[in-house]
Amino acid sequence: MTKLDVVPVLAEAERQFPETIERLKAFLRFPSIGTAPAYHAATKDCAAWLAEELAGLGFDASVRPTGGMPMVVAHHPGPAGQDVPHLLYYGHYDVQPVDPIELWDSPPFEPTVVEDAKGGRIVARGAVDDKGQVMTFVEAFRAWLKVHGTLPCRVTVFIEGEEEGSSPSLEPFMHAHKDELRADVCIVSDTGMVDADTPAITTSLRGLAYVEVTVQGPSMDLHSGMYGGVAVNPNNLLVRILAEMVDADGRVAIPGFYDGILEPSAAVTESWKAFPVTEAQFLDGVGLTGPHGEKGRSFLERNWTRPTLDINGIWGGYTGQGSKTVIPSKASAKISARLVPGQQWEKIAPAILKFVQDRLPADCRMTYQDFGSSPGITVPAEGPWIEAARAGIAQVFGKEPVLMGCGGSIPVVGSFKEILGMDTLLVGFGLDDDRVHSPNEKFDLICLRRGVQTHVAMLARLADVSA
Amino acid sequence: MTKLDVVPVLAEAERQFPETIERLKAFLRFPSIGTAPAYHAATKDCAAWLAEELAGLGFDASVRPTGGMPMVVAHHPGPAGQDVPHLLYYGHYDVQPVDPIELWDSPPFEPTVVEDAKGGRIVARGAVDDKGQVMTFVEAFRAWLKVHGTLPCRVTVFIEGEEEGSSPSLEPFMHAHKDELRADVCIVSDTGMVDADTPAITTSLRGLAYVEVTVQGPSMDLHSGMYGGVAVNPNNLLVRILAEMVDADGRVAIPGFYDGILEPSAAVTESWKAFPVTEAQFLDGVGLTGPHGEKGRSFLERNWTRPTLDINGIWGGYTGQGSKTVIPSKASAKISARLVPGQQWEKIAPAILKFVQDRLPADCRMTYQDFGSSPGITVPAEGPWIEAARAGIAQVFGKEPVLMGCGGSIPVVGSFKEILGMDTLLVGFGLDDDRVHSPNEKFDLICLRRGVQTHVAMLARLADVSA
Repeated sequence: MTKLDVVPVLAEAERQFPETIERLKAFLRFPSIGTAPAYHAATKDCAAWLAEELAGLGFDASVRPTGGMPMVVAHHPGPAGQDVPHLLYYGHYDVQPVDPIELWDSPPFEPTVVEDAKGGRIVARGAVDDKGQVMTFVEAFRAWLKVHGTLPCRVTVFIEGEEEGSSPSLEPFMHAHKDELRADVCIVSDTGMVDADTPAITTSLRGLAYVEVTVQGPSMDLHSGMYGGVAVNPNNLLVRILAEMVDADGRVAIPGFYDGILEPSAAVTESWKAFPVTEAQFLDGVGLTGPHGEKGRSFLERNWTRPTLDINGIWGGYTGQGSKTVIPSKASAKISARLVPGQQWEKIAPAILKFVQDRLPADCRMTYQDFGSSPGITVPAEGPWIEAARAGIAQVFGKEPVLMGCGGSIPVVGSFKEILGMDTLLVGFGLDDDRVHSPNEKFDLICLRRGVQTHVAMLARLADVSA
Repeated sequence: MTKLDVVPVLAEAERQFPETIERLKAFLRFPSIGTAPAYHAATKDCAAWLAEELAGLGFDASVRPTGGMPMVVAHHPGPAGQDVPHLLYYGHYDVQPVDPIELWDSPPFEPTVVEDAKGGRIVARGAVDDKGQVMTFVEAFRAWLKVHGTLPCRVTVFIEGEEEGSSPSLEPFMHAHKDELRADVCIVSDTGMVDADTPAITTSLRGLAYVEVTVQGPSMDLHSGMYGGVAVNPNNLLVRILAEMVDADGRVAIPGFYDGILEPSAAVTESWKAFPVTEAQFLDGVGLTGPHGEKGRSFLERNWTRPTLDINGIWGGYTGQGSKTVIPSKASAKISARLVPGQQWEKIAPAILKFVQDRLPADCRMTYQDFGSSPGITVPAEGPWIEAARAGIAQVFGKEPVLMGCGGSIPVVGSFKEILGMDTLLVGFGLDDDRVHSPNEKFDLICLRRGVQTHVAMLARLADVSA
């Protein structure tokens, strides 16, 4: 048992909470859209701010340049002279673009606390993804250091600025700094809870394949009167090909798409029976009743352990106001597949591209961009680290966390395992209605508060694990 | 026989041709995009310029306000004391938008004469559609007036500024000014020739139905990880519905779509056998080899007398650079059908909308805009007016014009017949490679020149018809 008492640290976390909100607001004011060149300076400023915060807490913190947006890396040795576990905390300070900007109720980079029946929420781009979640552990460190002058574990903080842009610099940086980054276990707060009172540990993640295709027909835009019925219309052609990708039962028709998929274990599906949210409740929050998606599969399967194919963007021809009788020269779509454990993840993007290419008339051609792929991942659902995390979570929430899947992707989890040999604990504090990647993204204050407390309690428990 | 000799008028048209080009350039410099509010002032300036040109020729010319862009109306009484036919010349001074602007080789409103093997071309938005074609008869009038001090017929000129925006003010204006506009026959130069040496009279036109639909699913944009497989994706949904609209044989699957269609007469299809352009030649100019479109129908049928369904625009989700894992709240498409004589033209737009509505899941909804419809039209292929036009054309080109169809729509032709009881002569001078509605729209100088001469010659022949 760590010699450091956790009770006064939890009290300090409560006491400092109003300041925690102010510090999160400062973090959120940086328009750190890492994928947009116009915001690169602001993104780098955000990294510098975060490094200064960590240095102010006593970390050996630095901003580390990459070919893209920099990494923030910070180290704290933990209690002097004790053999304690070494924990790596990962997160990201970059955020999604804000469009459509006209749907925001307040400016996305002017964080606004809105009162509501649940105790209020902070609204801003990045509120929960991932700045608010990063602050849950930074503020936990702050409370520990204020009360005890040290942390109960050795801690490395590793925060990147390219997560929303497929993390091109991440793996090269990991390879180049293996010794500096290798720890006993990694902790990531970029996932969600069941609801504000029901914590969760995420044990599976979907991967992602993402491509953009452009189908070119005529060498120029044409008048639909002069050429309609004789020339190929790339809009019509692309629509026909994309429609063939998913059949009437919601199954993806791309050859090999389902090959190798591992069904979740009986123990995992058994644990889902306790999941307290129904499909109807889940969809109600976004104005739908459903069901949608693959027939013959349960709600949680479709959400967590079945692959998908989504058209994330499509455009071609005249899209302004009014009418224009054009047959466009080309049409484009951004297509992504969520991938699951066992699926032949490296083959999916090529298979999507081949599916399009195979259906083109001889006088049309395809160009494409491949934005990278990552596999679906299963995280061990047992062992000393997860047991310590469960105990810390239970101390704060008064109940055991639910083991759940996550439909999204956190590719870094695979990289930590592959490059640094570390398992990851996925303990996050988001809610399904947080409007991640959407206008009016928010983080409930109760989630922020419980997140800080949970990291305080988890640190005490993790300190007791014999690495 | 008119007492006015046409030979010196043809000579004058030739003499003045360099000035004709300069006057057309002045006309083309007005960015008269009638559908774009930012260009309304310039569009009205263009109308004023045109009225002044006609007044300068001796017409009683005026700019007539409407709820939208104004009409230019001008009258010339013809030779004093003679009972001559009354001709109405129709055209439009508004032009299409210029996007995609980056594909223009010269600024669209800085008309540029480019030398080429065919004797040069003038490049600008509106070069052929329809400012250049309007100038063919204005400059013919100029030559007649210069040589003889009058025209051989009574002439009314009627030029609108909303043709590219479905002419919302046109029919109300016709109804309000029936007596002023009614003539013996209408002459429209907004169609094409077979090639620069092969003139044509167009005897059928396709109509148009044009709608925009938006399919709404979730109440907000969603993260494709959190919701993929469970929420409906409006991009996927819209693509599936649109793909169903046209079957694998290129036939439109909308119920009732083909009802009532009149096949062209044997005489007309017989005349097509002489049409000197093959499908391969037609498509080669736009980088295609084909065939495309409805199976079992000839090239000219598909181009002129078979209806089509084209997606003129489609958009939904993220369309910027890079990747965004969004399931959009909604997706939209602009959909138009080219319509042919006999087709139940008023039922097509509602049928398209019903087709979409019928395929929506219960928790999705559709909104739409209807941009108006017009029927396919057949113009009489015999009679004294068309015989006079044939003779005038033959005098200039040294050969008879081909009778052809036009795949595009000139809805005003139907309005002239219905409201004013007039038939229309469709004699135009465009070529298939004129890039109508596309970047680098052009009008070959040889076509402009022969167009002016043809209108000079036609005026002499039309003067001899006993109205």
